Amino acid sequence: MLGSTHGTLTTDSRRARVLACDERPGPAVHGRSADADDLDVSGRPLYADVPDLDRFFRPESVAVIGASDAEGRPSTGVTRQLVGWAERVGARLHPVHPTRESVFGIPCCPSVADLPEQVDLAVLLVADPLPVIEQLGEAKVKFAVVFASGFAETGERGAAAQDRLAAAVARSGTRLLGPNTNLNAFEHFRDDLDGPAIALITQSGHQGRPVFALQELGIRLSHWAPTGNEADLETADFLSYFAEQPEVGAIACYVEGLKDGRAFLLAADRAARRGVPVVAVKVGRTETGARTAATHTGKLTGADEVVDAAMRQYGVIRVDGLDELQDTATLLARAKPPLADGVVVYAISGGTGAHVADLATAAGLRLPELSAARQAELHQWIPEYLNVANPVDNGGHPVGDWRGRKIIDAILDDPEVGVLICPITGPFPPLSDRLVQDLVDAAERTDKLVCVVWGSPVGTEPAYREVLLGSSRVATFRTVSGCLTAVRAHLDHHRFVRGYRSPFDEAPRTASPSFRKARMLMRPSQQLSEHAAKQLLRAYGIRVPREQLVTSAAAAVRAAGLVGYPVVMKASGAQIAHKTELGLVKIGLTSASQVRDAYRELTDIARYEGVSLDGVLVCQMVERGVEMVVGVTHDDLFGPTVTVGLGGVLVEVLRDTAVRVPPFGEDQAHDMVAELRGRALLDGVRGRPPADLDALVEVVLRVQRMALELGDELAELDINPLMVLPRGQGAVALDALAVCR
Amino acid sequence: MLGSTHGTLTTDSRRARVLACDERPGPAVHGRSADADDLDVSGRPLYADVPDLDRFFRPESVAVIGASDAEGRPSTGVTRQLVGWAERVGARLHPVHPTRESVFGIPCCPSVADLPEQVDLAVLLVADPLPVIEQLGEAKVKFAVVFASGFAETGERGAAAQDRLAAAVARSGTRLLGPNTNLNAFEHFRDDLDGPAIALITQSGHQGRPVFALQELGIRLSHWAPTGNEADLETADFLSYFAEQPEVGAIACYVEGLKDGRAFLLAADRAARRGVPVVAVKVGRTETGARTAATHTGKLTGADEVVDAAMRQYGVIRVDGLDELQDTATLLARAKPPLADGVVVYAISGGTGAHVADLATAAGLRLPELSAARQAELHQWIPEYLNVANPVDNGGHPVGDWRGRKIIDAILDDPEVGVLICPITGPFPPLSDRLVQDLVDAAERTDKLVCVVWGSPVGTEPAYREVLLGSSRVATFRTVSGCLTAVRAHLDHHRFVRGYRSPFDEAPRTASPSFRKARMLMRPSQQLSEHAAKQLLRAYGIRVPREQLVTSAAAAVRAAGLVGYPVVMKASGAQIAHKTELGLVKIGLTSASQVRDAYRELTDIARYEGVSLDGVLVCQMVERGVEMVVGVTHDDLFGPTVTVGLGGVLVEVLRDTAVRVPPFGEDQAHDMVAELRGRALLDGVRGRPPADLDALVEVVLRVQRMALELGDELAELDINPLMVLPRGQGAVALDALAVCR
Repeated sequence: MLGSTHGTLTTDSRRARVLACDERPGPAVHGRSADADDLDVSGRPLYADVPDLDRFFRPESVAVIGASDAEGRPSTGVTRQLVGWAERVGARLHPVHPTRESVFGIPCCPSVADLPEQVDLAVLLVADPLPVIEQLGEAKVKFAVVFASGFAETGERGAAAQDRLAAAVARSGTRLLGPNTNLNAFEHFRDDLDGPAIALITQSGHQGRPVFALQELGIRLSHWAPTGNEADLETADFLSYFAEQPEVGAIACYVEGLKDGRAFLLAADRAARRGVPVVAVKVGRTETGARTAATHTGKLTGADEVVDAAMRQYGVIRVDGLDELQDTATLLARAKPPLADGVVVYAISGGTGAHVADLATAAGLRLPELSAARQAELHQWIPEYLNVANPVDNGGHPVGDWRGRKIIDAILDDPEVGVLICPITGPFPPLSDRLVQDLVDAAERTDKLVCVVWGSPVGTEPAYREVLLGSSRVATFRTVSGCLTAVRAHLDHHRFVRGYRSPFDEAPRTASPSFRKARMLMRPSQQLSEHAAKQLLRAYGIRVPREQLVTSAAAAVRAAGLVGYPVVMKASGAQIAHKTELGLVKIGLTSASQVRDAYRELTDIARYEGVSLDGVLVCQMVERGVEMVVGVTHDDLFGPTVTVGLGGVLVEVLRDTAVRVPPFGEDQAHDMVAELRGRALLDGVRGRPPADLDALVEVVLRVQRMALELGDELAELDINPLMVLPRGQGAVALDALAVCR
Repeated sequence: MLGSTHGTLTTDSRRARVLACDERPGPAVHGRSADADDLDVSGRPLYADVPDLDRFFRPESVAVIGASDAEGRPSTGVTRQLVGWAERVGARLHPVHPTRESVFGIPCCPSVADLPEQVDLAVLLVADPLPVIEQLGEAKVKFAVVFASGFAETGERGAAAQDRLAAAVARSGTRLLGPNTNLNAFEHFRDDLDGPAIALITQSGHQGRPVFALQELGIRLSHWAPTGNEADLETADFLSYFAEQPEVGAIACYVEGLKDGRAFLLAADRAARRGVPVVAVKVGRTETGARTAATHTGKLTGADEVVDAAMRQYGVIRVDGLDELQDTATLLARAKPPLADGVVVYAISGGTGAHVADLATAAGLRLPELSAARQAELHQWIPEYLNVANPVDNGGHPVGDWRGRKIIDAILDDPEVGVLICPITGPFPPLSDRLVQDLVDAAERTDKLVCVVWGSPVGTEPAYREVLLGSSRVATFRTVSGCLTAVRAHLDHHRFVRGYRSPFDEAPRTASPSFRKARMLMRPSQQLSEHAAKQLLRAYGIRVPREQLVTSAAAAVRAAGLVGYPVVMKASGAQIAHKTELGLVKIGLTSASQVRDAYRELTDIARYEGVSLDGVLVCQMVERGVEMVVGVTHDDLFGPTVTVGLGGVLVEVLRDTAVRVPPFGEDQAHDMVAELRGRALLDGVRGRPPADLDALVEVVLRVQRMALELGDELAELDINPLMVLPRGQGAVALDALAVCR
């Protein structure tokens, strides 16, 4: 199963449709560029800035500032570990201390300025790192690590101290890891393991410990970046860097919050372009978690559904537990791209086979029924009455002799099969030992994925410890759920990578003519009237009903004649919410007298309710379609996001909405609609015709363009409802709310 | 943490409202009774028949029919194992073989008739057990075990053979385990472990293996029933029996299908009455799983959502994986009832604390914020800037000295706290060793639940193997999800048991007057007309609109006058479906001429569509409320079930429904409504008034009474929509479909 999982960039020349407006951006830029004009129309960068961290992880020379070998001092243990590590990796180590002659027998320099050479890395063990930073810059030290805590994680005062530290770092030219980090980057990595490795990024040392410990089970780890408070270098920097390293098969992350949402997405985009899987635990499923994580590191946690969507857009595999992180990162680092997506469950017991097939199907895996010919072949070795369609139940006995291997090979030879999962609930010598050996041997001669679930809770059995863990070609798990989560992620990842086109390559860089029209409608810090909000939509080519704003009953009647009967009339004003509940909407008006009466009634109600009007809207009445909502909201972490949902009761009661972080292409807009629970409504229920899905997608993309161009000026946009008419007839925004910042 | 978890029967004298009709059943019967009249109105039993299995599990004498010690015969290994087991448990063993003199040195009897004593248990190693069964009956053998396979699991012929075997068993008076079972009941159970034990029931030997192996981790197992094909003794029998055994703290089950749904529920009811937790894996989440399980054992799998609901009604804890089965059964067997439901996450790392608190909250656990006083106490030992509100982050250092134990005790002393969860991501001597010892020591002196998650993937560390697994007072897990699932189940179980009242005690035994009226309306094998179906509802006191069935336009006008304008008119006939789509419903008719026109139009459409009518319904028009559906469907395993759901788009697109297996009380009917995703609609949205929830629950209970009384005669009932009016105004069945069997 060894081999790189890195794909090549897609050569698909189809252009992603990120925009759906009057103007197209300039030619797409491929590859990285550091130009200042690599910004999209909202002013956000389009390419990750990848720091060269070679000398951070493999320095030739290291200075330890505040080194100590005095008994009982905390810095002594750290110094000792660094000395050992430097020896192992062959780096020259220079202790720095104002008064000591030597530390652990190595001569000390009194200060940074006295260092005998330009060092790659300075490790700061001093309580106050600030004064040292400037000296590091002068000494042209490439990287610094600051262990000291007491910064942003401790509250406002600490955050201010961290800001000062960050400013000093920016001036110095030295790149910094920390503060509030630890020695994890300089641990003892096993160098006797080969094949693709896991690279690890964590915002907590303890949380990385189980992934690090995988080395004891034979799984290779190449790097560990404990990012601490991220005053300078952040998760995104390590993500981009690791994605470029040839030995890295997968990147495992433990993330509490992010310093910069866009930087994370650009880094994830780099990994996606290179086909490097990223598996991440991200705290913040609940308000409790988000709040605790925020106090722990002082970073932004973002709205969880937005984080979730953003990760999926760039193929980042989000998992919940550290056990899932281990299982999934290990499989994705080691497994070759699947040759087929069919999964076969192969078991020594009909019960185990039925159970695991049930769970595998529920996990979204495809268990193809084996062909009649294949089943006949298997029945050469397996009694006729046992089920071999998939799951394959061998009944036990054939495993004990030469037939066991024949069965495994026959399953793996099937072109429909990409993955074989063999759950073993425990040792039952001599069957299990032979089965395990056969699986290991079979895995040697195939590029297909062979997974074993060793279900015994004991875990000290030689078949597990020696045979299974001794093989890097069999993927071994301890739980069925761990296996299924990882296999699903593996298949999803390769499907994702095959179809990936970076949305950043296609993101608009220059404003459209729509923008110039729209800009004139914006009113800083105000909510626009319904009429103005609809003009904004119209500027971006989104259809709104024919309508006129009138300020007299006579004008209303004239407007109705122009708009065409039947009409809808609505009170219009900048501050009106809940129009329907207040009775400020009249529908189905079919005559001049009804229009006149409605005008009077609406203005009466508004006066009674104390609502100030800029007039009354006389609108074309739109036939029935499917009510949707499309909107823009602002996320702390990622900026403007685009939401689509089912309207009416579904959005109010079930919050059935999907969200994406711009930029995204037409495929993602389609996916948004597809992930709505009530999407079947758009296909037509109760004999209604299917709705105009293309028109809905078009509106989503036009709203995205608005969100990108208006950027932070548009605090909120809510089209509710967008009436999606039957296929071929388009979609009309019947009401809209827009709030300017 | 040792101690029995058995509760006592609730003394709450509030009567469960299982019915909501004219007549109440006789006084509730408490305790078990074997009377033939212990049947509910549908003819189903009300009490489990609990076999006395003492002599099955602890026989004084055992006969082995077909015993062998000949080299190379499969029965030799089995005989050897039985001889060893009989020696260990002190049972006299008698080999039976027609020709052998002795087996393993024990003298043989030539036949069952020649046995020297009346034996408790006969183990049949012969290929064809049928002829032996009669002899066992004559020899008054209490129990038999049949290992032979080739019965229902192999298809139709095997099923017929199994039927013959079951008939012979029934005649013989001997109770049978099997066929197609194995030696699991007679394994070597460790007798050096004490405290409450797990009893295990499995329909596959391999699937029980991991629970059995828990003994190697110090967890006590008292029994294992491998039920095989269940030709006689079934899962329910062992469930009832185990629930009565004082040493059993929890029952763990692996279930593929059930022989008899009602028997399972009655057994689960026994366990619930005694407060014995039942944890079950039940295959059949997916169609693949259900199909495979059915072919594996030839039992009924049932509709999965019905199985799920039935298990929840009786407090059976359903889990998906064998790992969850182990973790949850172990905790529930050992842990005392919780003293509070508050959970504190205590970690050595802010990251680990934040992560686990996030997952715990997402898992539905309550993490109370510790009081200011408690936090101040903790800050005596933990630096001020660390979060101790919950999660409690000790920052590491205090764990290394006397402060560590103080912190744990202070948390456990908090009256809000029932559970402490301490995730440890791996060994980091000396901190982790001391922490683990402190947790074990603290658990000794408290009745509160102390859980540790040992997150290292290695699992050979002494702190885990020796200290944590060496304590039966600390609950040790390997994954956070395993711990959270188990803790949630523990809290849920005790909450369930405290509130449990057996619905069987209150189930109706005699038919109500409604039944006599309803019976006259039934038409075997027919779908009733809307009008007849509504009369059926009316018989059970469910409100329907005022309506008349008419067969002329003139009669329609007269009817409209009586019903009161505005009216709704609908074509009525036994076979009409999709009335609305066909245009066979006219609403909001306000005048005689509209009624006349509508009559003509409806009959014209019916003629054009070829639909035969029994007339046209002229119905009262009911004001707007919340549209619901309430119905009865037939489940293969459990018989009639009652469903409630949100009407309109929600039921059509999202299938937002809840189901229960009768009998159930008013609390369950409320729970059904509460578990609907769209339940907020009933609270009133968009300014609408809250709906009459009590009326909805009343309809559900009346429908249940129908389902119980009409039993199998009613194949299907569907009230759609049931219009639930604003609070205090009731609910009206606007349309109904009833199919008779």
